[in-house]
Amino acid sequence: VTRVAVMGAGSWGTAFAMVLADAGTDAVVWSRDDKVAESITREHANPRFHPGVELPATLWATADPAEALRGADYVVLAVPSQTLRENLAAWGDAVPAGARLVSLIKGVELGSASRMSEVVTDALGVSPDRVAVLSGPNLAREIAAREPAASVVACTDPQVARDLQAVCHTAFFRPYTNTDVVGTELGGAVKNVIALAVGMAGGMGFGDNTKASLITRGLAETVRLGAALGADPHTFSGLAGLGDLVATCSSPLSRNRTFGEALGRGMSMEEVTAITTQTAEGVTSCVSVLDLARRHGVEMPITEHVVAVVEGGLAPRDLVRTLMTREAKSERGA
Amino acid sequence: VTRVAVMGAGSWGTAFAMVLADAGTDAVVWSRDDKVAESITREHANPRFHPGVELPATLWATADPAEALRGADYVVLAVPSQTLRENLAAWGDAVPAGARLVSLIKGVELGSASRMSEVVTDALGVSPDRVAVLSGPNLAREIAAREPAASVVACTDPQVARDLQAVCHTAFFRPYTNTDVVGTELGGAVKNVIALAVGMAGGMGFGDNTKASLITRGLAETVRLGAALGADPHTFSGLAGLGDLVATCSSPLSRNRTFGEALGRGMSMEEVTAITTQTAEGVTSCVSVLDLARRHGVEMPITEHVVAVVEGGLAPRDLVRTLMTREAKSERGA
Repeated sequence: VTRVAVMGAGSWGTAFAMVLADAGTDAVVWSRDDKVAESITREHANPRFHPGVELPATLWATADPAEALRGADYVVLAVPSQTLRENLAAWGDAVPAGARLVSLIKGVELGSASRMSEVVTDALGVSPDRVAVLSGPNLAREIAAREPAASVVACTDPQVARDLQAVCHTAFFRPYTNTDVVGTELGGAVKNVIALAVGMAGGMGFGDNTKASLITRGLAETVRLGAALGADPHTFSGLAGLGDLVATCSSPLSRNRTFGEALGRGMSMEEVTAITTQTAEGVTSCVSVLDLARRHGVEMPITEHVVAVVEGGLAPRDLVRTLMTREAKSERGA
Repeated sequence: VTRVAVMGAGSWGTAFAMVLADAGTDAVVWSRDDKVAESITREHANPRFHPGVELPATLWATADPAEALRGADYVVLAVPSQTLRENLAAWGDAVPAGARLVSLIKGVELGSASRMSEVVTDALGVSPDRVAVLSGPNLAREIAAREPAASVVACTDPQVARDLQAVCHTAFFRPYTNTDVVGTELGGAVKNVIALAVGMAGGMGFGDNTKASLITRGLAETVRLGAALGADPHTFSGLAGLGDLVATCSSPLSRNRTFGEALGRGMSMEEVTAITTQTAEGVTSCVSVLDLARRHGVEMPITEHVVAVVEGGLAPRDLVRTLMTREAKSERGA
């Protein structure tokens, strides 16, 4: 039986551990919190993130990273994007030699502007063909409710992607393989930023035409960033690009959309942050995504606007004006 | 002043006539119904389609097609897809020689499997470079409420597209030009079919992961059809492809989504049709879209499923199974 360590007991880590257990793997979850680990192992529950959901009986958890990592064939990374590097440094030698690393994390590291798989190869000194990423339209609560979903598992080594696909394929969760790690990761990182913008538009009272235009132009700027970084443009038309973006922007469960909506209704960053219990990843990553874009000379007007609202206190009002009032032009033109 | 005849006083014809009047053209609407024409001219209202909306005072209407068409620089076609050919035959000589034709119609003709611009060139014997199409994320009620929206105007002659762009550009409505008529039309025709499928999934209780996957796979089958017909794949990533699809699938105002939802909740075609006042275009076009796909040897599994539900009385239940339970594979693989 394949042994999988899921490092992180948040909303998505827990839901993906359920998929792994359903798929018949020996899955263990690491939580930094003793009580959460105990609740998962003894009560088959993680009430903070999945109230009312019964976890598979085979799933267990520990607060000891070395115990979780021992004998793991796959190490699944489900910690916050900005703590990944320090987590990896702390676990260091406990990560089994030869284990494959799988990032579920959507974000770009502040400062280095590194993608999560780059942080992994860099921090652990492993070869990129041992690092896979998983991304797609996978709202965690729906996955935990075993609603049907599809996703993308990407690795530069197609055999690793196929192996991982087999490890997490269930009757409800359908992974597709891909070799485009860069595109798969960027789709997941940028969509949180676009979801903030779509949320702002909704909060200001704009309708579905405006939101659909923001989604379309948002995906276009993601594709431009991807092109500069060597991603396959087709990835962005797929589940990890368009699919994830649409799910995030449509769902009332999306923290980023909800955060953006509150800003759009006129609340300040301080006010929204104060009433928000979980992190809206896009609030952090918009800055590093824009940093990445600037390093590669890519224009991302929506991302730039989101940064101006989040960091600079600009009113979201101008977002739609930015989108609408430039000179009439050709759709693909400059 | 440019003179524009909008042929059809339905929801979208009326809303687009408002855009034209706002843009400063001399716009006249033709309605086949005397009372509707009179209401538009005298009361600046079209209460059936836009209750509570005040139409621009410069907009007028007539029930006489020859009066509407007289001196028109642009003839905008906003009639149902399946009556376009007979409408054009009836108007015949009244269409001014040299006028440019603009199709707002989203559908494919039953029997011939022709796109709307093909019906126009065929029925009027005009050259394709005089025929433009307009399509995008443009829910008519939001346009009538002057919410910001963007759209695509496509013509094989780029100058015609630019001229049309100038004619309908307002502070709220931003048209982008494109020369890909085939892709622009197909995006609009197929999205109604996909919206039916997304509606069915919603009606059956599936969540946003499933709906986002259907949207993604639905756009992928539209791209395949477009490739077979010579469309530019980029068009489908833009406003007339992705944008229109997302707006239609997100909006409670979408007749196709709403129709699909009722089917998904278990109502029969007869029951849904009985309670539906306006046509859900996808119910008709799914058959002709599938016909078009088969003529070109293109697989469109979602469209095929929608046809089976609409025509064959199949339960929508299998739709998600079709999407989810095939063999695990690569995202772009066969």
